[in-house]
Amino acid sequence: MYIYIENIGKYEAKEVTIKGWLYNKRSSGKIRFILIRDGTGIVQSVIAKGEAKDSIFEIADKITQESSVILTGLVKKEDRAPGGYEIVANDLQIIQLAQEYPITPKDHSVEFLLPLRHLWLRSKKQSAIMRVRHEIIKACRDFFDNQGFICADGPILTPAAVEGATTLFEVEYYDQKAYLSQSGQLYNEATAAALGKVYCFGPTFRAEKSKTRRHLTEFWMLEPEVAFIELDGIMDLAENMVVYIVERILERKATELKTLERDLSKLESIKKPFPRITYEEAVKIVQKKDKTFPGGDDFGAPHETIISESFDKPVFIHHYPVDIKAFYMKRDPADESLSLSVDMIGSENAGELIGGGQREDNYETLLKGIKERGLSEDTYAWYLDLRKYGTCPHGGFGLGLERTIAWICGIKHCRETIPFPRMLDRVYP
Amino acid sequence: MYIYIENIGKYEAKEVTIKGWLYNKRSSGKIRFILIRDGTGIVQSVIAKGEAKDSIFEIADKITQESSVILTGLVKKEDRAPGGYEIVANDLQIIQLAQEYPITPKDHSVEFLLPLRHLWLRSKKQSAIMRVRHEIIKACRDFFDNQGFICADGPILTPAAVEGATTLFEVEYYDQKAYLSQSGQLYNEATAAALGKVYCFGPTFRAEKSKTRRHLTEFWMLEPEVAFIELDGIMDLAENMVVYIVERILERKATELKTLERDLSKLESIKKPFPRITYEEAVKIVQKKDKTFPGGDDFGAPHETIISESFDKPVFIHHYPVDIKAFYMKRDPADESLSLSVDMIGSENAGELIGGGQREDNYETLLKGIKERGLSEDTYAWYLDLRKYGTCPHGGFGLGLERTIAWICGIKHCRETIPFPRMLDRVYP
Repeated sequence: MYIYIENIGKYEAKEVTIKGWLYNKRSSGKIRFILIRDGTGIVQSVIAKGEAKDSIFEIADKITQESSVILTGLVKKEDRAPGGYEIVANDLQIIQLAQEYPITPKDHSVEFLLPLRHLWLRSKKQSAIMRVRHEIIKACRDFFDNQGFICADGPILTPAAVEGATTLFEVEYYDQKAYLSQSGQLYNEATAAALGKVYCFGPTFRAEKSKTRRHLTEFWMLEPEVAFIELDGIMDLAENMVVYIVERILERKATELKTLERDLSKLESIKKPFPRITYEEAVKIVQKKDKTFPGGDDFGAPHETIISESFDKPVFIHHYPVDIKAFYMKRDPADESLSLSVDMIGSENAGELIGGGQREDNYETLLKGIKERGLSEDTYAWYLDLRKYGTCPHGGFGLGLERTIAWICGIKHCRETIPFPRMLDRVYP
Repeated sequence: MYIYIENIGKYEAKEVTIKGWLYNKRSSGKIRFILIRDGTGIVQSVIAKGEAKDSIFEIADKITQESSVILTGLVKKEDRAPGGYEIVANDLQIIQLAQEYPITPKDHSVEFLLPLRHLWLRSKKQSAIMRVRHEIIKACRDFFDNQGFICADGPILTPAAVEGATTLFEVEYYDQKAYLSQSGQLYNEATAAALGKVYCFGPTFRAEKSKTRRHLTEFWMLEPEVAFIELDGIMDLAENMVVYIVERILERKATELKTLERDLSKLESIKKPFPRITYEEAVKIVQKKDKTFPGGDDFGAPHETIISESFDKPVFIHHYPVDIKAFYMKRDPADESLSLSVDMIGSENAGELIGGGQREDNYETLLKGIKERGLSEDTYAWYLDLRKYGTCPHGGFGLGLERTIAWICGIKHCRETIPFPRMLDRVYP
């Protein structure tokens, strides 16, 4: 019976067939240990000269790393084997004997591995990250679906900027110009007015001019948007979501977190409530360690580090000055210089995981903001329409998927959290 | 208590608050019927002069279509009301009195509505389509997740074409050129070799030069890929998936299908097995009605219509000639002029919903195909690598999301199946 390795525990003492690739092998006198991976797990087969058929022993000697094989044999419980089971081989066939594989079990530099990303993904660590990524995506969607949100994805090809024109990628769209979406938020505001509570979850693009460990030019963003919600409700929603995701990964991806040598205690402490501080309070925290930081500026990576290290949980920072936030942020009626905005900085120096807030719902104020920033009224005419026909308090946030994966996996660099990272100098493979 | 209209049945004889927009109103003597929508449903409130507070009656007289409101009142079972319940209003507040709404309950042309897509989505029909879209997306993901597939999305920014260079959108990527992905398949082949069975599900792009009812320049595609699978297994997978999706929509989206006036009997007959015919057999079916069709060509829309009308279920067409399929299709070992490819044509003239097949897994044959089509060996070097290191029989398919939604909803034009359609002449709003 053809089975996947992840299900091997159900087939003890039964004959099974595994199709996969040689992950590794070692020999000890007249015994050969071969490790086969099939994408769902790794299983060991012990082949002893004299016991196994000669033909199998010969194949075990000749087989190279990443050769594709079909292995048939009896499943045996074996506590010393990886995964707790091994296969006593009755038959072993090579589909293709692989050429010398460029990625050997020794350590390679990331510079060496990135152009080989299509093969690097086969490694134990990288495939564990991809499995965690999968579960995080599913947890994000389930969290919102279970509450009746509608997935309504915005377009990638857009006529205008959401987050500032300096990081736009330009596309030749027939005889006009279009731009790759930096965020689905503006479109979410339209769909939220149609469907009540929505989210979009797809790739977004920023033509970043610098290389940092947290920036990809193409990254996935989860963006919920709710009609009739205010700032506190937005923070509640984000907090509940993050706790849900972390719990789910702890529950379902223990094996992968172990492979990644993740300190589970750090994740287990991610419980409600998260601290909620104002921008002004955050500035004070920063200034305690960095006296040169001028209040009023946006936080850079070093400042986020200071804030993150002051808490063992993610922290919400709200009420940023209007001037350092986007044109669509709602002004605080109690202090027009502040915005009803909120960011969430991850624990363990994970950087900004979430950015969001309440949106400006007043037509005149929004129009003024658009004009003040030199943006085109025509381009945003449809967005202004949302304030003409039944405007209401509304808001949401964007969660950066790759930063969230890096945080949960305990990985420093976002480039390992996406199947094919795109950076300033990388658009291949 | 603040509730969503979709949950109103749980609050009979209780006081609730609804936040939403005026969908419609009518008056009959001293009675005003106002219909409020909140994105999750529509509820009626009856306001009678003398019974209701004067202030509420005045608001009911003055309120305009799409004004945002807060309505508080007692939930009452009322079989004649839409949804089976109505609210006896104790309080009605206007958040914003909407300006004259451009989309009135009368019929408008699609040409008029497309530039107003951000508002058009609020209509009963369009929001029903979006709810079906949501459920189809979720059904697609659940189908594969439940079988242990890993979601591993490919990049949008790519160095090369998958489906032919004539429909590529070009992007200025710093000092080089990149192209918007036409399909995640090539990347899926790499992740399938790493993770066994994978899918990607995101936006894809084709710079179509023509306007048809089935073509969008930006559309979502679901693409599963499996290592160690052959053509029959691919058709089994596609068939099981389509049946699963249709059953799920019938089960969970009955209300929306009713709004869309969908003939349910057509969907209820979508059961296994689907007919599986060869390209040659399909040519004969076409030629019975259109004697001018030359065997050997790809089918156009009129030919797909002829084939679709010959069956009351989706139909698989396999073994297309090598020459009319992409370079990566595996040749049939039994007849090198044929490919192990398969398309699925939807019933009710829904067009090609699925395209896929087994991939060429032989290095030399693949390289020859790349060279014969004038493609660059360098660009595809990473893809060729997959045939050097443990190649195996593998394959998958792509399901066009918008065409599938159009088919299931019984809608002629794909432009209504995506929140913000992108076409030859449309990149706004």
